[in-house]
Amino acid sequence: MAVIRVEFFSNCLIRQVAFEMFVPNDFRDDVPRQHEQYYKRKCKTVFVLHGFKGWGKGWTHMYELADKYNLALVFPSGENHFYLDTEDSAGKYGTFIGVELVDYIRRTFGLCSSRDDTYISGLSMGGFGALRTGFAYPDTFGKIAALSSALIMHEICGMKPGEFYQVGNYYYFRNCFGDLDKLLESDNNPETLIKKNIKQGKNIPEIFMACGTDDFLLAHNKRFYDFLITHNVKAEYIEDNGGHDMEFWNKYFAKSFEWMA
Amino acid sequence: MAVIRVEFFSNCLIRQVAFEMFVPNDFRDDVPRQHEQYYKRKCKTVFVLHGFKGWGKGWTHMYELADKYNLALVFPSGENHFYLDTEDSAGKYGTFIGVELVDYIRRTFGLCSSRDDTYISGLSMGGFGALRTGFAYPDTFGKIAALSSALIMHEICGMKPGEFYQVGNYYYFRNCFGDLDKLLESDNNPETLIKKNIKQGKNIPEIFMACGTDDFLLAHNKRFYDFLITHNVKAEYIEDNGGHDMEFWNKYFAKSFEWMA
Amino acid sequence: MAVIRVEFFSNCLIRQVAFEMFVPNDFRDDVPRQHEQYYKRKCKTVFVLHGFKGWGKGWTHMYELADKYNLALVFPSGENHFYLDTEDSAGKYGTFIGVELVDYIRRTFGLCSSRDDTYISGLSMGGFGALRTGFAYPDTFGKIAALSSALIMHEICGMKPGEFYQVGNYYYFRNCFGDLDKLLESDNNPETLIKKNIKQGKNIPEIFMACGTDDFLLAHNKRFYDFLITHNVKAEYIEDNGGHDMEFWNKYFAKSFEWMA
Amino acid sequence: MAVIRVEFFSNCLIRQVAFEMFVPNDFRDDVPRQHEQYYKRKCKTVFVLHGFKGWGKGWTHMYELADKYNLALVFPSGENHFYLDTEDSAGKYGTFIGVELVDYIRRTFGLCSSRDDTYISGLSMGGFGALRTGFAYPDTFGKIAALSSALIMHEICGMKPGEFYQVGNYYYFRNCFGDLDKLLESDNNPETLIKKNIKQGKNIPEIFMACGTDDFLLAHNKRFYDFLITHNVKAEYIEDNGGHDMEFWNKYFAKSFEWMA
Repeated sequence: MAVIRVEFFSNCLIRQVAFEMFVPNDFRDDVPRQHEQYYKRKCKTVFVLHGFKGWGKGWTHMYELADKYNLALVFPSGENHFYLDTEDSAGKYGTFIGVELVDYIRRTFGLCSSRDDTYISGLSMGGFGALRTGFAYPDTFGKIAALSSALIMHEICGMKPGEFYQVGNYYYFRNCFGDLDKLLESDNNPETLIKKNIKQGKNIPEIFMACGTDDFLLAHNKRFYDFLITHNVKAEYIEDNGGHDMEFWNKYFAKSFEWMA
Repeated sequence: MAVIRVEFFSNCLIRQVAFEMFVPNDFRDDVPRQHEQYYKRKCKTVFVLHGFKGWGKGWTHMYELADKYNLALVFPSGENHFYLDTEDSAGKYGTFIGVELVDYIRRTFGLCSSRDDTYISGLSMGGFGALRTGFAYPDTFGKIAALSSALIMHEICGMKPGEFYQVGNYYYFRNCFGDLDKLLESDNNPETLIKKNIKQGKNIPEIFMACGTDDFLLAHNKRFYDFLITHNVKAEYIEDNGGHDMEFWNKYFAKSFEWMA
Repeated sequence: MAVIRVEFFSNCLIRQVAFEMFVPNDFRDDVPRQHEQYYKRKCKTVFVLHGFKGWGKGWTHMYELADKYNLALVFPSGENHFYLDTEDSAGKYGTFIGVELVDYIRRTFGLCSSRDDTYISGLSMGGFGALRTGFAYPDTFGKIAALSSALIMHEICGMKPGEFYQVGNYYYFRNCFGDLDKLLESDNNPETLIKKNIKQGKNIPEIFMACGTDDFLLAHNKRFYDFLITHNVKAEYIEDNGGHDMEFWNKYFAKSFEWMA
Repeated sequence: MAVIRVEFFSNCLIRQVAFEMFVPNDFRDDVPRQHEQYYKRKCKTVFVLHGFKGWGKGWTHMYELADKYNLALVFPSGENHFYLDTEDSAGKYGTFIGVELVDYIRRTFGLCSSRDDTYISGLSMGGFGALRTGFAYPDTFGKIAALSSALIMHEICGMKPGEFYQVGNYYYFRNCFGDLDKLLESDNNPETLIKKNIKQGKNIPEIFMACGTDDFLLAHNKRFYDFLITHNVKAEYIEDNGGHDMEFWNKYFAKSFEWMA
């Protein structure tokens, strides 16, 4: 497994940024399976979005999954910005993931050249990011896997200075999501994007969602799944024992990669 | 010269962050001077702040300067935030540099244990950052070297939505500097901090400023130097041929490190 | 947990080399235990030596163990050289680990300042390295944990050109171990070092050994343990179900770190 | 300029290894030239081999040259082995550079797909490596730039245990070059390879050589150039003021890249 770290200039963030990749293309002579696998079928690419407090580093557990399912994994840094374009001219985190980074990986590595081999996944804030980015660029991503997703649009809309919600204050969410009074109608709300996709006859990416029954975000995930059902959008939705922790994510990244591959 | 990269959890930014260091403490047997230098005098530490579009990587030119002047250099990432605490609960870039990072370096490496061996420098946005951080923590930093500093407080104060100044729009500067109508009186204005330091009888760090005569920030630097003179704050201030570019900075980082060491 | 990567000039290898560390000294405000732990007791340092084909990168599993047991872990690269000084003037891998690296960590990080907080461990080739380095520098290391150790001295001694043993040919082992006809009497044989330590009245480091019952190195480990018993050297020795694989090592690194802490 | 660090498993060295690249393919919107340059002509790839004591890191000076001449630069680590296959089964440094690494870069990045865009260069030990590797794989590399090359074959041939030459003892050179009594006739001698190439009617890569007039390797370079002349092999050969130092190499890497591009 090759571990690749790239530093490049992002026009969306107007500075040098770094991301990491796991790419299963260094064939060990002592593991003959790797050669066969590579030449039999091209690997698919999954963009993996971390949660709040996290950053763009591959989790070791995924190292083995990348090998097992022949997946190239890309780990960008979202810097606690919910993977959204902000009003700040130097903070286009949404376009960074959905356009600039995909283009760069495509041009540099010859990976993720079509919708059929370009997937996106994430956990918590990154689960939100995977859903929103997938719906914002439905022609780019073929599949979305969203774990324990921070689908908190309804909780933070209308938030005021002086208020705090779970991980941040008003200014934090204002900075990430823009005008919080207009959040639900904006493209920062995945529900709005779903409706637009339907209206425009877009091919919505396939969806895999999972959430632990002890997760404080369980209700948020259930609500979003109900929204999908109501709008006749198919999704694999799983509730299972577990909390908002690596134990649950290790289990469900494995399941979601199996679903993708 | 040791090149050290540290990834650690910042409570100010609420996520894992990285910074790089050059530390002149790997003594090559083929360069005997290094041993002598190390045991004769403890190296001083300089925090080096990059400009807009930059990030926390050591410039190779500085590699030789660190060796020559026996300096440990620390290169944090400012992520285009002008090294300021924002109203956003996850964006305390000022406290990150001036308190959290200094404490971490001190605890981990035994460096920069006193004001006399803790210096700060930077270029452009980082020159602003060096001045502001030095004045915000005058008991921490003994010397400041500020090159081609982006002392743009008077230009961006009062900025409105729809306006753009040089590198960013209203929201960008609002995000970095807080309420732009109240900027001049706030602690994000180095002038305000100077006045406070004087009032409180603080020991203001020694100051080295340099700016190229072709730099678009020349007038800003001259204005700030005049402010210092008016307030009886001593500073080494140099105007020299050159622009807002690496050629000027290479020359003046060398001169400023000589001034520091 | 801080992840630190250091590149520095090694006089033993006559070139810039890199190693990685996990250091539990970045205290998350959301994990109060970390602060208490740090100030209550200084962390101990474990040098962790990888096996053949491996290199000096921290395994993620150890990340959690470093946190749990308050250990600084250092991961040097042994470059398939069995952590031995070779006759080659640019290949002193043994002195590199046992002297140069310990000194550098001590000088740079203030860690591992005494025998009581300086431990060494490893797996396979690294298990051999941990035992040999520990016995070569018994005043430096207080404890040794050696998993599935490649104690192959008796197998490769007397090897001739044209022969191949498990992972390498005659020239490979000749390069690592020196004159293979004189291996058993040389300091590259941990048994020889044990005998010297006894003769010189040295305080032999405490020993923890473990090997899987399906491991092809089981007999080698048993033989070495018998040697220790015969020479009245105490050691914790465990045989358990398992092979020469990460599953066994994950389990026994955990147990050995518990034993160390 | 993208800075890429790759860690992958080398079958030639039987372990995970790392190399660095500069790739001019991240187009800054504020540097329009970069877009034009990229789409007008595909960048060529230069493998850059470091000298004794060095390692595979990009020199910052080259950063600007890569941009200026639209070159992808690859910096492998030679670990003081003169870029040669050793008799040691885990030490095929020559095949690593000339075959495995070229294949990996080709497969991963779509670069260096033909002889016309695959070049090799180096300084000192790396200058030797560039010449030898280029002649060993004349169908792979179209151009060679060799600076201050350590063409020491005639000096170390016949070396005996107990002897030391410049940077290493007998065992060091024996380990790198194999049987030193048979060195001149072996494929580790670039002269032997030149003769073979001529005999086999191979297309010898274009050659650029430079050496400082104060360099202790001047006579060695002159001798090799005379050998080329005698064998009717064309080469650009320059002697200029300067020593065995970065000042000379900065100047002549610039000139050699200009010659290549």
